[in-house]
Amino acid sequence: MSKTTATTEATPLPRADLDIEHVDALHEAILAGNGNVIRSLLANEHPAELADRFEQLSSEARSTLIELAPDLISPLLLAELEDEVVENVLPLLKPEQISKAMEELDSDDALQIFEELSKERRAQVLADLSSQDRKEIEAGFAFDEETAGRLMQREFVAAPDFWTVRQTIEHMRTQSELGGENLPDKFFDIYIIDTHFHPLGYLPLSTLMRSAPDLVLKDIMERNLTVIEPSLDQEDVAYLFEKFDLISAPVVDDDGRLSGMITVDDIVEIIQDEHTEDMLALAGVNEAGLVDTVASTVTARAPWLFVNLLTAIAASFVISLFKEEIEKLVALAVLMPIVASMGGNTGTQALTVAIRALATRDLTPANTTRAIRREALAAIVNGLIFAAVLGGITFVWFGSTALAVVIAAALVFNLFCAGLAGILVPLGFKKIGADPAVASTVFVTTVTDVVGFFAFLSLAGAFLL
Amino acid sequence: MSKTTATTEATPLPRADLDIEHVDALHEAILAGNGNVIRSLLANEHPAELADRFEQLSSEARSTLIELAPDLISPLLLAELEDEVVENVLPLLKPEQISKAMEELDSDDALQIFEELSKERRAQVLADLSSQDRKEIEAGFAFDEETAGRLMQREFVAAPDFWTVRQTIEHMRTQSELGGENLPDKFFDIYIIDTHFHPLGYLPLSTLMRSAPDLVLKDIMERNLTVIEPSLDQEDVAYLFEKFDLISAPVVDDDGRLSGMITVDDIVEIIQDEHTEDMLALAGVNEAGLVDTVASTVTARAPWLFVNLLTAIAASFVISLFKEEIEKLVALAVLMPIVASMGGNTGTQALTVAIRALATRDLTPANTTRAIRREALAAIVNGLIFAAVLGGITFVWFGSTALAVVIAAALVFNLFCAGLAGILVPLGFKKIGADPAVASTVFVTTVTDVVGFFAFLSLAGAFLL
Repeated sequence: MSKTTATTEATPLPRADLDIEHVDALHEAILAGNGNVIRSLLANEHPAELADRFEQLSSEARSTLIELAPDLISPLLLAELEDEVVENVLPLLKPEQISKAMEELDSDDALQIFEELSKERRAQVLADLSSQDRKEIEAGFAFDEETAGRLMQREFVAAPDFWTVRQTIEHMRTQSELGGENLPDKFFDIYIIDTHFHPLGYLPLSTLMRSAPDLVLKDIMERNLTVIEPSLDQEDVAYLFEKFDLISAPVVDDDGRLSGMITVDDIVEIIQDEHTEDMLALAGVNEAGLVDTVASTVTARAPWLFVNLLTAIAASFVISLFKEEIEKLVALAVLMPIVASMGGNTGTQALTVAIRALATRDLTPANTTRAIRREALAAIVNGLIFAAVLGGITFVWFGSTALAVVIAAALVFNLFCAGLAGILVPLGFKKIGADPAVASTVFVTTVTDVVGFFAFLSLAGAFLL
Repeated sequence: MSKTTATTEATPLPRADLDIEHVDALHEAILAGNGNVIRSLLANEHPAELADRFEQLSSEARSTLIELAPDLISPLLLAELEDEVVENVLPLLKPEQISKAMEELDSDDALQIFEELSKERRAQVLADLSSQDRKEIEAGFAFDEETAGRLMQREFVAAPDFWTVRQTIEHMRTQSELGGENLPDKFFDIYIIDTHFHPLGYLPLSTLMRSAPDLVLKDIMERNLTVIEPSLDQEDVAYLFEKFDLISAPVVDDDGRLSGMITVDDIVEIIQDEHTEDMLALAGVNEAGLVDTVASTVTARAPWLFVNLLTAIAASFVISLFKEEIEKLVALAVLMPIVASMGGNTGTQALTVAIRALATRDLTPANTTRAIRREALAAIVNGLIFAAVLGGITFVWFGSTALAVVIAAALVFNLFCAGLAGILVPLGFKKIGADPAVASTVFVTTVTDVVGFFAFLSLAGAFLL
């Protein structure tokens, strides 16, 4: 037991400078078409490391690498890669390699790979699977995308409630000696069932482990079990995991019989994916935005830029109604973007807080009224503060009290509308069952632009000219 | 074993309509000052449920509730509440109640409560703790905020590498019979150590459970252990958990000796917190923004509104340089916000994708150049597409080819700058060690406003008038 064992040192985070050298060497080996150098560069890497390196390559470099060293694409690597990358990699693999990987992995990981196959290849790969694995994949694939049914694995550990601790442990040892085919690779809880396979409770392995061998499961199990329906949306599944600090949860079929298990490592991935979805939606980027080609970047962003163009033209149209006023007093053209910009910022602030509070379920029907009131009041307070500041600046800049009063009034009104729109628009989308993150930004900034320009220019027209 | 056992049904998600009735009843009981009704309404709720209900109340209602039924504030409830709420609740509790809760909880949860205490009360509460608990709290508190040291619990299970499976299980049973003080409430892995307490590997409980009793830990342990230093930032800890699909990880002291454990349930919380931080930072809201008073809402948002005001004035100043041109051709005032708005949108899109890619570590020094090139090219392509559209609309609207060409050229140039700024600004912040999500938005929109107005108005001045 030497003190120098590598594992006694803390795991280093990737160092940017070391990493670049490695990446350069890898790129060179790929360009040189040298499969053996590639293999030696990537030997002994953890599948998660390997997946990271793989994802950093351009898609062309990735294809060449696979041609040169197809054996590097292990089942565990496939399970670690992001969906978009798996989709690119699968067409480069032989069907046998894919079905072999699916046989080796737990059923949830196998299904994730299956999802990314083209329609033609799905049949081919299914035919290569053992009949049990085929059935599992088909059953899982029958559930809607992004549901618990798609997410769950069919391997789990269940024990009848009348078993003792000793019997349970012995059962697992026997299963393991028989090859462990039906045991999950990793599990954290044992589900306790009645004779009809209905879950009654669960037992964390840490409790089982420290319990006296003669105790009966029924007497030591935890009864507040969180049971999940296969049709439940993955976002709701993640919510239950977070709320109840779950490590795993059982999934039941229509008759309430135990049929699968979801584990927390999949949930962490879902939480990250949902975050990415929310952030991109708020910024007006479609999901394709993460693949690394110029074409996909343009496709992901152009649609929302087009919507933005329409709303910008609407705002311009409002301005065009006041051409005469602007010709008479060009200061209006100078100042009007400030009112719109402050409104846009206030709206985005309120909107983002609301979207986040909806996602974390802190904003619920129980406190909606309070939240709306708070946004409206906060917007008025900020409106008054910044009206004073901007009014002062306008007075100093243009020497006109009337202009200062007009811009101050327009600002208060626009910030009030912005604060309200910022919370009401996402709540409205939520109410009609749409994703509040998508399209909310465009709606809110349209309101703040149109109201901002209109309030300022029409007040100026009425009181200044 | 009846089929109607409640636990065989899937866990329902909270139903909004039921929830509102419950909330109303709770509010009534609080107003009526009836502690017993409150207790009966909240009886048998899971601590996580109770925490949710608690967080939904206004701070005044919460204070009254605690006065009426202080016994509802159980240790587990305190562990479930969000930090901001704990901070509000603690001053309402007696020091003895707090120290008792801390004694009962695992050391990481106890430390989280301790962090939210006022300075004066910390000493008072520490004095009430047992000497071991006091030492643990003091040791944890000595680490910087948001580090692994603050996050870890000091209860974990370790076994020497020469023990057998049987010895290990028996050790845990004995510990448990002795009261289990040193065992964590829940654990998922056993860390295998040498005689110097240096970790050599780990064994998931599921492996221990299914292994033959006579096997020696050394021969069955997993050696690719992820070991964490106490000074590691919690964001980096979360990254390691995600990357390697960890359920728990050991923390070592300066001499590489095992000193604590971090579990995945804490990581899920951190991922959520970091995400909230990023989203709010992008929208220009300080963290206080989630507490429910108007004053805190204003304080959280006014600073960034002030910065936005300065940048909006800078853009106005640019416009003011072209007063004469606008007086001569008022169409410029009508059209100029479109150029700025399209740039702002393009910049925000690029920025959000970059921030997210930095957070998930998909954007690294290894692919930065490629990402910058992609953003620049995509911006040019979108610039050309929308230049054609906007040029056409301008021609139809104002009947001027020259005006159409000028706005098209300004748009291409502004979108190009927007795309570049959208990726270079966050990368720049990252490079100097600042949080790329904070302040990036303001920088990027300043660029797109200033460049947009300047490009359009100066081109118009040079070629139209």
